[in-house]
Amino acid sequence: MTPEKKLRLAESLDRIGVDAMEAGFAAASEGEMEAIKLVADAGLKAKVYSMARGVTKDIDAVLQTGAVGVHLVIPSSDLHLQYKLKKSREDVLKITEDTTQYAKDHGLIVELSAEDATRSDLDFLTQFFKAGVAAGADRLCPCDTVGVLIPERTSVMYTELKKRLPNVPLSVHCHDDFGLAVANSIIALKSGADQAHVTMNGMGERAGNASLEELAVVLKAQYNVNLAIKTELLYETSRLVSRITDFHLQPNKAIVGENAFVHESGMHTHGILANPSTYEPFKPEMIGRTRRIAAGKHSGSTGIKASLNEMGLEPTDEQVKEIFLRVKTIGDKGKRVSDADLQAIAEAVMGLPVSRPIKLEEITVVTGSGVTSTASVRLNLNGKMLTEAATGVGPVDAAITAIKKAVGIVEPIELENYSVKAITGGTNAVTEVAVSLSKGDRKSTAVGVNEDIVIASVEAMLSGMNVLMTNYNNKKVKES
Amino acid sequence: MTPEKKLRLAESLDRIGVDAMEAGFAAASEGEMEAIKLVADAGLKAKVYSMARGVTKDIDAVLQTGAVGVHLVIPSSDLHLQYKLKKSREDVLKITEDTTQYAKDHGLIVELSAEDATRSDLDFLTQFFKAGVAAGADRLCPCDTVGVLIPERTSVMYTELKKRLPNVPLSVHCHDDFGLAVANSIIALKSGADQAHVTMNGMGERAGNASLEELAVVLKAQYNVNLAIKTELLYETSRLVSRITDFHLQPNKAIVGENAFVHESGMHTHGILANPSTYEPFKPEMIGRTRRIAAGKHSGSTGIKASLNEMGLEPTDEQVKEIFLRVKTIGDKGKRVSDADLQAIAEAVMGLPVSRPIKLEEITVVTGSGVTSTASVRLNLNGKMLTEAATGVGPVDAAITAIKKAVGIVEPIELENYSVKAITGGTNAVTEVAVSLSKGDRKSTAVGVNEDIVIASVEAMLSGMNVLMTNYNNKKVKES
Repeated sequence: MTPEKKLRLAESLDRIGVDAMEAGFAAASEGEMEAIKLVADAGLKAKVYSMARGVTKDIDAVLQTGAVGVHLVIPSSDLHLQYKLKKSREDVLKITEDTTQYAKDHGLIVELSAEDATRSDLDFLTQFFKAGVAAGADRLCPCDTVGVLIPERTSVMYTELKKRLPNVPLSVHCHDDFGLAVANSIIALKSGADQAHVTMNGMGERAGNASLEELAVVLKAQYNVNLAIKTELLYETSRLVSRITDFHLQPNKAIVGENAFVHESGMHTHGILANPSTYEPFKPEMIGRTRRIAAGKHSGSTGIKASLNEMGLEPTDEQVKEIFLRVKTIGDKGKRVSDADLQAIAEAVMGLPVSRPIKLEEITVVTGSGVTSTASVRLNLNGKMLTEAATGVGPVDAAITAIKKAVGIVEPIELENYSVKAITGGTNAVTEVAVSLSKGDRKSTAVGVNEDIVIASVEAMLSGMNVLMTNYNNKKVKES
Repeated sequence: MTPEKKLRLAESLDRIGVDAMEAGFAAASEGEMEAIKLVADAGLKAKVYSMARGVTKDIDAVLQTGAVGVHLVIPSSDLHLQYKLKKSREDVLKITEDTTQYAKDHGLIVELSAEDATRSDLDFLTQFFKAGVAAGADRLCPCDTVGVLIPERTSVMYTELKKRLPNVPLSVHCHDDFGLAVANSIIALKSGADQAHVTMNGMGERAGNASLEELAVVLKAQYNVNLAIKTELLYETSRLVSRITDFHLQPNKAIVGENAFVHESGMHTHGILANPSTYEPFKPEMIGRTRRIAAGKHSGSTGIKASLNEMGLEPTDEQVKEIFLRVKTIGDKGKRVSDADLQAIAEAVMGLPVSRPIKLEEITVVTGSGVTSTASVRLNLNGKMLTEAATGVGPVDAAITAIKKAVGIVEPIELENYSVKAITGGTNAVTEVAVSLSKGDRKSTAVGVNEDIVIASVEAMLSGMNVLMTNYNNKKVKES
């Protein structure tokens, strides 16, 4: 991440109300140093920390950043001492005491982290923490560096540490290598931990850290903890962080994944329409998002009818049944059903005239090195021929710009979102393009699928435009 | 999913050793029915089930498939009874008894699932299960349909249910809405559950179900459970399922995510090279994968040196230091460092001649509707001009095929993997293409970044080819 991106990320975390953030590792590089300075100077409400190892030069680097605290990480397991640090337990106690003292002498808040604490001898870990506390450490964190904690051990370890070190706040820092980071964080908090280290979207080394959004929402919704985190900003913050860090989330990511509030199966849709809490653990508004009913092969007819009503269509029960059947047939072929698909099916079943105001007559695109990407397009709009050309940053951009220019003369339609699913396999892999379009208040989604990314994009664009340029007269359909 | 895809998925799950699988919902559609038939007929070792609701027509559909068992799902919470089913508790007990009896009379194994059991009155849930057991139910599953379970409640609920129903096997079925599915499954298994419902890659409605790979690995590695699952096939199975279902995993997905065994930070790399267990919770071989040390701004010099050695370069300590510094500078700009980048830096620092055997002189690509995607390319290979043309399924395919044809006359290089990161934002978004290439035993990775997907692909391809076509003579470099 560039320093500017880190600052945007820090600002977004500050907005949702985190207490403190580790802005980076000052001694790692010039860029990291600059990033931490930017964040520390931004006037955030959250306290800004930098990481440091147990060496004075790392702490000196922190002091140059303006951070108020240091996250001082020193190994405590015999494995790390022997293979990584190559020091004895006595050496490590001395280092802990000296570097904590050094940081405190220079006015820093010190959170002392024992690295690989969860595979350390508990008595040595206690000695380690006591050495830090004697030198002035403000907080202690037994890090689960390798993600080996399990619930039973978490409970025992925190209960014991709290008993041995009752007067210093304890943190919990979990990694998700076994998928248990959030559960272990909760159990630690219940067994003596006073604060939790988390990351947005669960980012972090290897399988990442405990996810901020999961921990915050479960503590509020299931444990009734009065957290200061503004959960209603979680969804937009997650998306912002995902864009800034170029870190793609899988559809089933808890809380913030694309599918977390999508209901497709008939059983579920049926329940959701009667009462959303039948199939939702908490209201999507809690995290600033909305639910969506997807039409697909598992949809019930109730769900399909709701989607059609939203489009301004009012099919009879018989028609809904038939539309439902055809949607399932598409689903059985492994395809997803977009607004454009559903419209086409409904038209056929309801005997409505096929409404495709725009037809593609011809498109040609040229690109290359030393060639400005250029597209020429000929569209038939209700019998009127529209011809346009446009340049773009690439072949897709040129093609879509040409179409927008051609149609824009008649109808101003905005491309709200353009996305392409990750392409894997080879250069001849099928590419799936999804678009969201808007014309005033109306919106539509459409998908284009082709081995040629340009053609897939053009198909998606034209399908979505055709949905928006169709005006159903509900009453008429109903009366006929 | 098409029936054929479901069969491939079922075969891969059978290979890793699952005991039973729910192959679909027979009554949902013709395609589902066909899929279950295919799976049931495939001679798998695993028992094949179909889902059914508490209606005889659903069970009749199961009977047509050849599945040996039915996963009979009937709601048990007052919320579901009131809003979805619109039936009384008495009605539901009757339905449970009747449909269980009907399925048993027709020779099916019956796993009776109480839907939304975790929000049900525990006494009614007990009555519900007892009604099923009286009618012959073989197994019982109190489903956490909405993912509301927390560890404390899981433990209480399973302990109590096991006490009340000691003689019938209990299942656990968790959803991951709060990120707790795996933890809850473990706690259920410790509190009385005899088997767990899981899905590969944690797929499923909304935030998905408990993930097979996470539960299997943590049970084996941390709880020493002697599971029959062949964990060494988990990684390839996850990737296969991901491809079949077009379900993209995020890099930090536990166990099977791209980053689960990637080490970049200097502290971590340093430890990993001394002893992998310092920063790995279990050996990657356990799930059939390998670790990778990534060069980046958080890399230590130890990590960079290991990567360069793999490339056949043996820099001095001074040179490693300088290369490390430059890698960090790239990282600070927010870029990732591929083999091709690292090679370029090493060449500059080590004073090696810049080795770019192939230079792009010119490329032009045409595509469109009714136009066969065609590319012409002119490459300079060590001063020799190579000109080629090729067609393809799209502009990228045409361009890459033309390059492969041109270079292939001299050096046969295979494109092992071509992938494009998901594109979001707009048609002018920057596109990132990654390639893996091989020439005999040697492999290389390279990345191309451009707003034009064709140019990004060409850049990645040529960078990767240039790495492979360079032959360092280690000894010579060392001696000079």
